[in-house]
Amino acid sequence: MKLNIALLAGDGIGPEVIDQAVKVCDAIATKFNHEISWKPALTGAAAIDAVGEPYPDETHEICKNSDAVLFGAIGHPKFDNDPSAKVRPEQGLLKMRKALGLFANVRPTFTFPSLLDKSPLKRERIEGTDLVFLRELTGGIYFGEKGRRDGGETAFDNCVYTREEVQRLAKKGFELAMTRSKRLCCVDKANVLETSRLWRETVQAMEKDYPEVEVSYEFVDAVAMRLVQWPNSYDVLITENLFGDILTDEASVISGSMGLMPSASLGSDIGLFEPIHGSYPQATGKNIANPMATVLSAAMMFENFGLLEEGKAIRAVVNNALNRGIVTEDLAEENNAYGTKEVGDWLAENV
Amino acid sequence: MKLNIALLAGDGIGPEVIDQAVKVCDAIATKFNHEISWKPALTGAAAIDAVGEPYPDETHEICKNSDAVLFGAIGHPKFDNDPSAKVRPEQGLLKMRKALGLFANVRPTFTFPSLLDKSPLKRERIEGTDLVFLRELTGGIYFGEKGRRDGGETAFDNCVYTREEVQRLAKKGFELAMTRSKRLCCVDKANVLETSRLWRETVQAMEKDYPEVEVSYEFVDAVAMRLVQWPNSYDVLITENLFGDILTDEASVISGSMGLMPSASLGSDIGLFEPIHGSYPQATGKNIANPMATVLSAAMMFENFGLLEEGKAIRAVVNNALNRGIVTEDLAEENNAYGTKEVGDWLAENV
Ligand SMILES: CC(C)[C@H](C(=O)O)[C@@H](O)C(=O)O
Ligand SMILES: CC(C)[C@H](C(=O)O)[C@@H](O)C(=O)O
Repeated sequence: MKLNIALLAGDGIGPEVIDQAVKVCDAIATKFNHEISWKPALTGAAAIDAVGEPYPDETHEICKNSDAVLFGAIGHPKFDNDPSAKVRPEQGLLKMRKALGLFANVRPTFTFPSLLDKSPLKRERIEGTDLVFLRELTGGIYFGEKGRRDGGETAFDNCVYTREEVQRLAKKGFELAMTRSKRLCCVDKANVLETSRLWRETVQAMEKDYPEVEVSYEFVDAVAMRLVQWPNSYDVLITENLFGDILTDEASVISGSMGLMPSASLGSDIGLFEPIHGSYPQATGKNIANPMATVLSAAMMFENFGLLEEGKAIRAVVNNALNRGIVTEDLAEENNAYGTKEVGDWLAENV
Repeated sequence: MKLNIALLAGDGIGPEVIDQAVKVCDAIATKFNHEISWKPALTGAAAIDAVGEPYPDETHEICKNSDAVLFGAIGHPKFDNDPSAKVRPEQGLLKMRKALGLFANVRPTFTFPSLLDKSPLKRERIEGTDLVFLRELTGGIYFGEKGRRDGGETAFDNCVYTREEVQRLAKKGFELAMTRSKRLCCVDKANVLETSRLWRETVQAMEKDYPEVEVSYEFVDAVAMRLVQWPNSYDVLITENLFGDILTDEASVISGSMGLMPSASLGSDIGLFEPIHGSYPQATGKNIANPMATVLSAAMMFENFGLLEEGKAIRAVVNNALNRGIVTEDLAEENNAYGTKEVGDWLAENV
């Protein structure tokens, strides 16, 4: 297969972890006889510095003409304490999601037996956790009308959803549930919000098309609780943009393996694959960042192309490295840490 | 002191736990020479059944003419799977909050040394946790315009905040921080929402009036993570209505003592005091519900009247009962559970 992949390394540790994923993908390409052509492009603070825009048109062109996007991380401390700054890296992220039509953010949370003790939760609470959130990513309060009235004294954000937006996200949820344990949880706040009532009635109407899937409906506040109490009671969860933002981050830390969690953002055309961790500015350039989440995001990318063996090979080599302790300092036993680059090299050599 | 207290027992286990709190309050009144006149009134499903309204005008009159409201719990399974039902218990709750002007929901999360092992978190993560959320309760997306367009195909909920709404909540936050460790965390999503930017700029402008308070600003998704990782790193947190709904529930389960967590909802006039747990329909009438959260809510009520000794006496007797194992089955060692009523009697006799 010939693959054109846009490479958006971004800020902070983004470039370092992306470099390792590229090595691993190239090794996979060699082994399985694919040809990958990488198309680097600017994003985030790096793009603001270079051209004054966090998601420049040129970057969008490159993404649109690729088969997938591999994304590092964005964000820089110089923007952190000024949320109203005119140009911010996050704006690029939102613009990109919308422009590429990436409406479904897929966020798995799973555990690695060797890392269970890193979890803040007790072992019996976290063991066996293997859930996936599908977060709607291009609608809701993120993209509704927002602004000020009364000379700036009143602020508003409008949350809007159409039935179609709910349907296309829910469809992915039902389909994913069919490939797993056939349980789907719709997370909403239907006791208060009209948009949530639309979500719930839309999903309810779709149940008949997937008679094998057992659907439950839970309020977002209840899910925020049960995720901490019994995360292993969930399988596939679907939810709207803002609830998904909060709950997927909550879910990411319970496993104790946050540095390993990948994600995908899918649309009708193109997919974007990125680690869930941030740009981790303090670690930049120190060769200490954990590249595994990015490498596992690349596994999701291959799987999304239907290249399941390739994805499996990446997961296998990551497991292998974990078992042998070929890991960065966040996961290493004292004094046995490998560098970002050394972990990447080992993974690439051993796929 | 002469106190008129409206008594809204509500549904499920509400009446049982309220009964115990009344006994304890009466014992406190005798001991400290107060006179409490209780004014029972209908709310929740019980009120819908009786008069077709979850928060009837008569109940509102009683509340308005009282010095405080002691509240049990509302909600009944017959309403659960029909979020769009015309009349729902939750609507009464929202109507009541608005009508009584209860704009600040005070939700402490603390630990009891003897209950640490009930927490889903590892001991070293939860030990020493003692935080308080101040959740804005009468604004935001809960009370903004909501509805449908396009023949029902599009739904919207508007989130609105005025500077004044933020100020009065933040003021309570700063004042509370001054009585504690002088640390205040403002939780928002200022990188995406205009209402959050108003929150942040308003709180930033108030910092100069409380020079001793150290204020931090965190995004809601980051707080959802850190609450699980390092809950004891927080002290006072202020946030808007919907974020508060999600985060206070998340916080409530980390302590392992959810059945003990009280809350207060304060306005400029009247305060309402209630346990954070729900109506727990399965337990109704079984004399197994834990009354301690309601009893501790009564302690918050006395403290809010400035009756600090009375509050202290209630907290002391609850601690005493916990240490002696005078507890309901949710906290008891096997076969040593007391009934709801027996725990209430013991507390009342021993204040
Ligand atoms: C940076 C921010 C705008 C973004 C979001 O809220 O979607 C981030 O938190 C995420 O989850 O990808
Ligand atoms: C029942 C519901 C409307 C309510 C809310 O969302 O405020 C509840 O979850 C709460 O936190 O008191």
